[in-house]
Amino acid sequence: MKIELSHIAIACPTIVTVAEKLRVLSLKIAENHEVPTEKVRAAMLPVRVSEHFRIELLEPTQPDSPISKFLTKRPDGGIHHVSFEVNGIEQWQSILIQNGFEILPPGIRKGARGKALFIHPKSMAGVLVELEEISN
Amino acid sequence: MKIELSHIAIACPTIVTVAEKLRVLSLKIAENHEVPTEKVRAAMLPVRVSEHFRIELLEPTQPDSPISKFLTKRPDGGIHHVSFEVNGIEQWQSILIQNGFEILPPGIRKGARGKALFIHPKSMAGVLVELEEISN
Repeated sequence: MKIELSHIAIACPTIVTVAEKLRVLSLKIAENHEVPTEKVRAAMLPVRVSEHFRIELLEPTQPDSPISKFLTKRPDGGIHHVSFEVNGIEQWQSILIQNGFEILPPGIRKGARGKALFIHPKSMAGVLVELEEISN
Repeated sequence: MKIELSHIAIACPTIVTVAEKLRVLSLKIAENHEVPTEKVRAAMLPVRVSEHFRIELLEPTQPDSPISKFLTKRPDGGIHHVSFEVNGIEQWQSILIQNGFEILPPGIRKGARGKALFIHPKSMAGVLVELEEISN
């Protein structure tokens, strides 16, 4: 039986504010519509997806793990972050800062497979967003 | 500059419990590793993604919208749900119930583009998961 990921829905106070931020990440609204039965307005932004796309499950190994802290607030679990693969991560960092995004300290860091940075959830509709550049 | 969605990370108390649930949705762990610097254990589950994959932004149009309720708890916004496109949604519903998943009432409902059901976040690591079947 077919099952494939079709969308991620982000709740936000106003679409226009978040769409403006996502445009900095090259994501643009392709379609708008209103669903009166659900009392929502919706905007669709097509996204290019890596052929290696995956869901990652993260479990803490220590009580002082960042994941333990997350689970204190949400004991059942939840989406911790959403990650995009990029190239030119230094250039992306400059663009983000120029556009008023807050980057989590220390900025670009060594990741397991290359370099990574995290955008503060306050800057992106309550969602922690990672940009990662994989080293070859 | 390249930017493509590479993964969604779900924080959970134990990987084994969530992996068992995701297996019911045909998702299987392909890789496990430990990241001592982050004090986490990680499991990777490759996922088939629709060629029409998109991010949806949802904004309330009424104070009693389900999205307004969500924003009361998380004023900046956040990920509201993750959606998979399926076929045979009635069969999926039976499989989910047989495996102890809680389906949000009223079960299968009419969606904007076909039929849909929602799995209770308590049944899936704090994440609201939608299955949708698109009518042709």
